[in-house]
Amino acid sequence: MAETVCVVVDAMGGDNAPQEIVKGAVEAVNMNKDIHVILTGKQEPVEAELAKYTYDPEQITTVDCPEVIEMAEPPVAAIRTKKQSSLVVGMKMIRNKEADAIVSAGNTGALLVGGQTVVGRIKGVERTPTAPLIPTEKGIAILIDSGANVDPKPSYLVQYALMGSIYMEYVVGIKNPRVALLNIGAEEEKGNALVKATYPLLKELDGINFVGNIEARDIPHGLADVIVCDAFSGNIVLKLYEGAADTIIKAIKDGMMTNARSKLGGALVKPALKETLKAFDTSEYGGAPLLGCQGLVVKTHGSATANDIKNSVLQCVTFKQQGINDKIREHISRSDNQAEKENIDQ
Amino acid sequence: MAETVCVVVDAMGGDNAPQEIVKGAVEAVNMNKDIHVILTGKQEPVEAELAKYTYDPEQITTVDCPEVIEMAEPPVAAIRTKKQSSLVVGMKMIRNKEADAIVSAGNTGALLVGGQTVVGRIKGVERTPTAPLIPTEKGIAILIDSGANVDPKPSYLVQYALMGSIYMEYVVGIKNPRVALLNIGAEEEKGNALVKATYPLLKELDGINFVGNIEARDIPHGLADVIVCDAFSGNIVLKLYEGAADTIIKAIKDGMMTNARSKLGGALVKPALKETLKAFDTSEYGGAPLLGCQGLVVKTHGSATANDIKNSVLQCVTFKQQGINDKIREHISRSDNQAEKENIDQ
Repeated sequence: MAETVCVVVDAMGGDNAPQEIVKGAVEAVNMNKDIHVILTGKQEPVEAELAKYTYDPEQITTVDCPEVIEMAEPPVAAIRTKKQSSLVVGMKMIRNKEADAIVSAGNTGALLVGGQTVVGRIKGVERTPTAPLIPTEKGIAILIDSGANVDPKPSYLVQYALMGSIYMEYVVGIKNPRVALLNIGAEEEKGNALVKATYPLLKELDGINFVGNIEARDIPHGLADVIVCDAFSGNIVLKLYEGAADTIIKAIKDGMMTNARSKLGGALVKPALKETLKAFDTSEYGGAPLLGCQGLVVKTHGSATANDIKNSVLQCVTFKQQGINDKIREHISRSDNQAEKENIDQ
Repeated sequence: MAETVCVVVDAMGGDNAPQEIVKGAVEAVNMNKDIHVILTGKQEPVEAELAKYTYDPEQITTVDCPEVIEMAEPPVAAIRTKKQSSLVVGMKMIRNKEADAIVSAGNTGALLVGGQTVVGRIKGVERTPTAPLIPTEKGIAILIDSGANVDPKPSYLVQYALMGSIYMEYVVGIKNPRVALLNIGAEEEKGNALVKATYPLLKELDGINFVGNIEARDIPHGLADVIVCDAFSGNIVLKLYEGAADTIIKAIKDGMMTNARSKLGGALVKPALKETLKAFDTSEYGGAPLLGCQGLVVKTHGSATANDIKNSVLQCVTFKQQGINDKIREHISRSDNQAEKENIDQ
C-alpha cells in the first residue's frame, strides 16, 4: 500500500457548499484507499451531508470551524480576522504538517493570500502562481500564471516555467513538456517590456524544453504544454476560452433549431457532440494548483460540483506521491545557482 | 450625389496580392458610385488584373510603384528606404490630401509605423491604436487597441475610449455605445497597474457611456460595444477568439464524423450551421482601422480576400461621410480642456 495522502477539503467554500463539496470528498475516498480527507467547516451541516453517503469512516474526519469566509469578502482582512474559518484552519494544518494539501472552491483572493501567508512559500520561490489546466486539441496545457500576480517581474516567470514544467511532467505525465512564453508574435523581439525581458532568461534556462513564443491563437491548437504569462494575460486567456466556447456552442445549437431539416440533424448528431464537448469541460481536469507553496493549495472554481472536488482531491494524491515540491525545491535552488554562476562568469 | 471618397488600395499588400486586392477594389466601386479607388502597385500585374473586370474607368486609377514592402521586412527600415513602395506612395497621398483613406493587407508593422510617421496623427492624439471589429452574440464590438501600443500610458486608453466610441456610434451605427475597460474582475479595484490608473480617468470622462470593467468571458456575450485595452491584451483576445473558434468548430465537425448516425445528422445540419458560423467570420466587418491618423488607415489581415478588401473600402466611405476625424478632433480637444480644467480646480 502506498503512503496515505491527507487532503483538507474546505467544506464551506463555493456556491454549492457544503452539499457538492462533501459529495466530492466521499467520491474521492471511495475511489482511492490511500486518501484521508479532513473536512473543515460547520459541524452540523457537514455531518448532515456525510450521513447521506457510504464510505470508510477511517478515511474522512471532520474539524468544526464556526467561521466562514464569504465569496465577496476582502481577502486580506478575511484571512487575518477569521482564524476559525474552514479555510484558515485547513491552511494551518498544512503549515503544521498535519495535512499535505487543501482543496477549496471558496474566495479566490483569500486562497491566494492564505497560500502565501498562512501556508507559506517553498524557500527560494518568489511568488506562487495559480496554474489551471486547459483543454486543447491535443490534450491539456497548464496556464501559469492565470490569477495571482498581475504585474510580475521576469524572474517570477522563469520560476513559473520551471514549476509548470515539473507539474506537467510528473502530475500530468507529459515527457519533456514544451514550455512557451505567451506573446503577440512568434519572433523573439516581439512583445511588451515584460516578455522582452523574460524571453532571453527562458532561452538560457537549464532543465526546461523552451520552444519560444506562443501566440494566443495557437493555445487551443495545443502547440505548447506549459504556457508562461503574467496573471492579467493568463486570466484573459482562461476566461475568454470559457466565454468563446459558450458562445460558439450556443450559436451552433441555435443554428440547429432554424428549420425542420436542421432540427432532425441536430437530434442525430447530439450524442456524438456531447462526447466532443466533454473534452472542453475544464472540470474534468481538477482544480488550479497554487504552485510553489509548502504543501499543495488547489483552487476549484466557485461553482464547483462534486466531480470538480473529486478530481481535485485525486490530483493532490499524484502531486504528493510524485514528490512535486521536492522537485520544485531542487530545481529552484539549481536555477538560483545557475544565475549566480552566470553572474560570476560575467 | 454625395461627395466622392477617394480610397488608396495597396495592390501589393498581403498573401493574395494583387489578384484578390484588385478584385475587391473593383467590387467596391461597382457597389458605390461615390468611390474613387487609387490602386498603388506594380503597373503591369495590376493592369493585367484590372483587365479581367468590368467597371467604370473613371472610378479606378492606378499609380505605378516599382517597390514592394515584403510581409517580413523590418517595418521602420522599410518605411524609410522604400519611398517608391505601394504603401509609402499611398500614405503620402493621404498626407498631401490627394486621398481620404488607405486600405492595405500588407506588413502590419510597416502600416503602423507609416500611419504614425508618413500619414501623421491628428493634433492632440497621443497614439494611434488598431481597432478591429469582432463578432459577439449581439452583433459586433470594437477592440481598441489590439496591435499598436503594447505598453501604453493610461492617457492613451482614455483617448482610445473616445475614438472607439465615436467609431461605433457613427460608422457602425450603435447609439450611445457601451465603453468597457478590459479587466480580470468586475470590481473597480481589480487589475494591474495600468487598468487601476485608467479606471478612474474613464469614470470621470465626459462624452462616453462608460459601463465599467469587462471580463474576457463577457466579450463574446456582447456586454460592451467598445473594449478598451493595451495592445498586448487586445492581441491575445483577438487571436484567441480566432483560435478557439477554429478549434471548437473543428471538434464539432470531427464529432459529427464519429458514426453513421452522426454523419447523417451532420449532413442535415450543415446548411444551417454555415449561416451561423458566418456570423463569426471577421472578414464580414471590414478591416481594422488605425484610429487617430490624419485620414484613415485600414489594415486587413494578411490573407485578405476580395470580400475583405471590398468591405474595408466601403467602411472608408462611411468614415469619411460621417466626418469621423472631425469628431475625434473635437472630442480630443474637449477632453484636453476637461483635464486642464480639473487640474486648475484642484
